[in-house]
Amino acid sequence: MKNLLHTIKVAKGEIKGSILLKNATLVNVLSSEIYKTDVILYESVIAGIGEDYQSAEKIINLNGKFLLPGLLDGHLHIESSLLSPPEFAKLVVLHGTTTVIIDPHEIANVLGIAGIKYMIDAGKNLPIDIFAMISSCVPATHMETSGAALKAADIDQALDFDKVLGLAELMNFTGVISAVPGVLEILKVAQAKGKLIDGHAPGLLGKQLQAYIAAGVGSDHECVTKEEALEKLRSGMRVMIREGSAAKNLAALLPLVIKQNCRRFIFVTDDKHPEDLIEEGHIDHILRKAVSLGLNPIMAIQMATINTAEYFGLKDRGAIAPGYKADIVVVDDLKDFEINMVFKDGQLVVEKGKILVNIPKYKDVSVLKTVKVKGLSKESFRIQVKQGEAKVIGLIPNQIVTQKLFSKPKHENGLVVSDTANDILKLAVIERHHATGNIGLGLVNGFGLQTGALASSVAHDSHNIIVVGTSDEDMLCAAKRVVDMEGGFAIANRGEIVASLALPIAGLMSDAPAEEVCKQLKHLLKVAKELGAKPVNPFITLSFLALPVIPELRLTDKGLVDVNKFEIVSLFG
Amino acid sequence: MKNLLHTIKVAKGEIKGSILLKNATLVNVLSSEIYKTDVILYESVIAGIGEDYQSAEKIINLNGKFLLPGLLDGHLHIESSLLSPPEFAKLVVLHGTTTVIIDPHEIANVLGIAGIKYMIDAGKNLPIDIFAMISSCVPATHMETSGAALKAADIDQALDFDKVLGLAELMNFTGVISAVPGVLEILKVAQAKGKLIDGHAPGLLGKQLQAYIAAGVGSDHECVTKEEALEKLRSGMRVMIREGSAAKNLAALLPLVIKQNCRRFIFVTDDKHPEDLIEEGHIDHILRKAVSLGLNPIMAIQMATINTAEYFGLKDRGAIAPGYKADIVVVDDLKDFEINMVFKDGQLVVEKGKILVNIPKYKDVSVLKTVKVKGLSKESFRIQVKQGEAKVIGLIPNQIVTQKLFSKPKHENGLVVSDTANDILKLAVIERHHATGNIGLGLVNGFGLQTGALASSVAHDSHNIIVVGTSDEDMLCAAKRVVDMEGGFAIANRGEIVASLALPIAGLMSDAPAEEVCKQLKHLLKVAKELGAKPVNPFITLSFLALPVIPELRLTDKGLVDVNKFEIVSLFG
Repeated sequence: MKNLLHTIKVAKGEIKGSILLKNATLVNVLSSEIYKTDVILYESVIAGIGEDYQSAEKIINLNGKFLLPGLLDGHLHIESSLLSPPEFAKLVVLHGTTTVIIDPHEIANVLGIAGIKYMIDAGKNLPIDIFAMISSCVPATHMETSGAALKAADIDQALDFDKVLGLAELMNFTGVISAVPGVLEILKVAQAKGKLIDGHAPGLLGKQLQAYIAAGVGSDHECVTKEEALEKLRSGMRVMIREGSAAKNLAALLPLVIKQNCRRFIFVTDDKHPEDLIEEGHIDHILRKAVSLGLNPIMAIQMATINTAEYFGLKDRGAIAPGYKADIVVVDDLKDFEINMVFKDGQLVVEKGKILVNIPKYKDVSVLKTVKVKGLSKESFRIQVKQGEAKVIGLIPNQIVTQKLFSKPKHENGLVVSDTANDILKLAVIERHHATGNIGLGLVNGFGLQTGALASSVAHDSHNIIVVGTSDEDMLCAAKRVVDMEGGFAIANRGEIVASLALPIAGLMSDAPAEEVCKQLKHLLKVAKELGAKPVNPFITLSFLALPVIPELRLTDKGLVDVNKFEIVSLFG
Repeated sequence: MKNLLHTIKVAKGEIKGSILLKNATLVNVLSSEIYKTDVILYESVIAGIGEDYQSAEKIINLNGKFLLPGLLDGHLHIESSLLSPPEFAKLVVLHGTTTVIIDPHEIANVLGIAGIKYMIDAGKNLPIDIFAMISSCVPATHMETSGAALKAADIDQALDFDKVLGLAELMNFTGVISAVPGVLEILKVAQAKGKLIDGHAPGLLGKQLQAYIAAGVGSDHECVTKEEALEKLRSGMRVMIREGSAAKNLAALLPLVIKQNCRRFIFVTDDKHPEDLIEEGHIDHILRKAVSLGLNPIMAIQMATINTAEYFGLKDRGAIAPGYKADIVVVDDLKDFEINMVFKDGQLVVEKGKILVNIPKYKDVSVLKTVKVKGLSKESFRIQVKQGEAKVIGLIPNQIVTQKLFSKPKHENGLVVSDTANDILKLAVIERHHATGNIGLGLVNGFGLQTGALASSVAHDSHNIIVVGTSDEDMLCAAKRVVDMEGGFAIANRGEIVASLALPIAGLMSDAPAEEVCKQLKHLLKVAKELGAKPVNPFITLSFLALPVIPELRLTDKGLVDVNKFEIVSLFG
C-alpha cells in the first residue's frame, strides 16, 4: 500500500478521500449481499465503506447504481483478438474488465520467451492489469516447425518474470498422464516455485483425470458437459466456464453451479475475436448471459471477480472492501450490466462508453519482421499427381474437427489442380520462421472458393503461413502479400490482392485500434464470401487446419498429419 | 511432490498405491457433497479417488465410515495448553487435528525471537504441521517489563523463517487506527513481503473498523455478536469463530453462517486449557457443537478445513482430492465425530484413540532457566499503609474484566495485611526476566483464599511472577518455589509448599505429557479450593490480573494500572 498513513486517516474520516461514491448499491461478493452504502477511495485503494463519509476531492452521486468489483478474465489468449495488448486493453476496459490472466501461447510459438516478455511488457501501464501464465506446450507437436521451443529451463526462467502467476494450460495432457520426462520436468519447475498450473483436458475422466490432477493441475476450461465438469470439480479442479467466440459452454455447465459450490467456478473467454468483443462485450457479456439463463447475479459476479482472484492468489482485488484495489465497475442494473463507469486503481478510466485516459502505443521492434520464407514461387505449390486416391481434409460446418476423406483429385499435365466444381481446393502450409523452405501441400473439401486464394500467418499452433486457393498463381500472390506485410490476412483474385489486413506483431496481431481492425476484417470476410468461401469466418477455419492435435486430418509445413495416428502421412496412398 | 512419476502411475492404476481406503463415505468439501467412493494414497499424497482402484501395499476397508480432510485450527496459542509443542501435537492429533497456525505470543514476551524459533523448531517432525504467525505486539504495553521486545526489524527477520505465514493478531488495534509510527512500520514489513496479517479487534465497528481493515488486516477472531461479525464479514475480514476454554462464541455467531457466505468463516480455539483438550477435544469438539446447534455438517467441516487452508494459502491441504496431502480423518458419523483413524502425510498415526507413532522429546536448553529474580524476601511484599482508601482490583465471577473498587485496607504495625474476613488479599507481581527487583503490590477482592498463597509465572502478557496470598510468608514461599522450578504454579500454606506444577519451558510450558500435567493441575485446583479460592480456575484468573489492556484495574511489576486511563496509578489516593 503506497500510503498507509493517509489511507487509515481517510478511512477514519480524518482527512479527505480522493473520490467518494455516494448512494451506491454495493454488490458485496464477500458476504453475498446487495445493499445501499457509500464507498470512499484514497488514491488507488478503497479506504472505507459506510454512510458516514462526507468529504473527498471529488464526490460522485451514483443515484442507486450498482457497484461491482472490476471484472477478471481467468484465461484468455489476447492474440485471438488480433489486437496488441494496449489496444486489447482499451477495448475490454470499456466492458468493465480490469484484470486478465493471459496465456501468450500463440506468440510464444513464434518468438518463445521474447514473445512472452513482449506481452508482459506491452501489458503494463494500461487501464487493466495483465498477468501471464507461461505457455507450457511450445511447440504443440514434433510434426510442425514452430518459431521457438520452450524447454523446462526456459520455463523455469520465465516463471520468475514480473506478473507471472504460473504455468499455462497443460494441453499435452497425454504427456502428463504418460509421464513423459520432458513434461514432468516442466511440471516440476512450476511446483518447485509453488506456482499454479492451469489445465486443459477436454473429455478427460476417470483414472486418467485423477492422474492429470495428481500431477498438480489446478484448473480446467475445457468442460463441455455438466457431468464432465462435476467430475473435475469433485476431483479438485477450479472449473473455468468458457464462453468465447467459438467455444460456448455456459449454457451446458451453468446448471451445475449452486450456492455451496459456486466458489470453485470461474468465468473465462479463452479466445474471443475482435468483432465479438466489440459487439457482445467481454466478461460483461458472460454476466448478462448467465443471469438471463437464471443464475443469481451475485453468484455470477463472484465467478467473474473474487473466485478468479482467489484461485490466482491475487489478494488485492476481486471485492469491494477496505484495503482492496479501487477497481470498480458501475452498472445500471444486474440484468443488462450496461457499463456506466469503470475505476481502475482509483482512477475513473471509463464513463458512458468513452475511455478517459490516454494509452500510448507500445513499440518493440523485436516482435516485428518475424516472417522469414525461403524462395517462394509458383513451383512451390506443385503437387505431382500419383496413382489412386488422395487424402482430403473434409471440413464439417461449425466444427473444429475435420474428416479424413479420399478422392481422386483433378489434375492437369501431371499436376494436381484445385477442383472448384467438387470443392476440392489446394492447401499449403509454408514454414515462415526459419526460412527452411518447408512447405506442406494438401487438399481440402468444403471451403467453397470459386476463384482466388486466401492466405494467413495465423495458423495454430506454430503459425506458419497457410494458404487455400483455386490456382497456384493466386495462392502465391496471397502468400507473398502475407510475407510482404510481415504477417496478416490476404485475399488474392486473378493475380491481384483484393483485400488484406496486416498483423505485423509476430504475424499475429495488429497495432491498429480495434475498430480499424474490425473494419478491415469485415471487408476481408465480405470479399471472401464474394469469392465463394463457405465457412462463417474463413480465416478462423483456415487457422485451425494446421493444428495437428485435433482429429482427423491436418496440414503442417512438414506435411499431412493423421491426428489419430499422430504421424505424418503421404497425400496419396 | 516427492515422487511425481509414481503418483501419476498410482493414479492411473498402473502400479500399487501405498494405502487404499475402500468403501469410504467421502465428505467432499470442494463440491459440497457426500458420497461413497475409494481413495488411494501414494506415500504422503492422495493419488486418486474412485472405485476402480484395486491394489495397494495396504488395503483398509472402511465399511462406509466418513472421510474428512485433516482438521485445521486457524489461530491458537499452544502456551495455553501448558504443553510443549510435541506434547500438544500428541494430544490434538488424537482429535483429528493435522495442522495448526499458532501465535507464539506468550513465549515471545519471555524470549522474543528465540522463543518463536523454539516453537517452530519444536513443532517439526510431529504428526501435525505447525505453522506460525509472528507475534506483533511484544510487549503489550510500556507499563510492564517483558522478557523481550519485538521491533519492526525483528519481525522483518522472523517473517522469513521457515513455516511462517504472516503477522499474528494485531492486538494493538488502537495503535493501527491512530497510525502510531512503530505499528505502521510493523504493518509495512509484513505487507512488503506479501504476508498475511491477522487481526484482533474486539467490538471494533464503523469507521475505526474500516481504518483497521484498510491497513491490511485480513481476519478477526474476537467477534462476540452476530452484528459485529456481519460488519467484519462485509468489510472483508475472514471471521474466525472462536470456541476455546474461556471465550466461546460459536452459539452467538453460527446463525450468521449460510451457504453463500460460509467460505469466509474459519474455526479457531485461540486458547484451550489441557483439561479441556483432553475432556472435550479440539476442533472436533467445535464440529460436534456446531452440528448440534444445527449447522450443515459439510459447512462445519469446510470451516475446519478448506476455508482455513484457503485463507492461509496452504494449497496442499484442506480437501481430499488428487495431489493434496494425505491428511485424512476417519469418523463414524457426522454427529459425534468420534475419531476412528487419522492419517498424516499418508501415514496412519492414530487408530481408535491410540497414537501409533513415536514422538521423541525435543530438547532446547535455551528456553529453560528463564526465571531471574532479584533479592526476594518477606520485606519485598510490604505495603506501607497510607491515609484514605486504597484501590482494590475487584474480580467479577466468570469474567475477565475487573472493577476498580475502593476500600480502607486492614493494617498491622503500619503495614497493609490481607483481610480474609472481607476477602481483600495482597497481590504482587515480581519482575522475573531481568532481575530488576521490580515488584508491583496491590489488593484484590473476590479471590476467596482463607489461608495460604498462590504463585504463577504465567501472567499475561509479560509473564512475570504473580502471587496472591493471605500472608507475606506464604506469598514468599509460593513465589520462591516458582523461582526454584524455573517457572510454574505453586501453592503454599503455613510456610510449606502444598502443591506445585513445574513449567520450565520459558516459565510457561511443561515438558511432561498432557495426562501428567492435568493430574498435577487437578491436584492444584483441589488444594486451592480447600484453601478457599473462589474462581473456577484460580491460576487462570491470576494470570489475567497482570494484563494491562483489559479494564479496569490491573497490577504489573511496575505497579497498579488504571486501564481506562492507560497509566500507572498509586495504590492509595
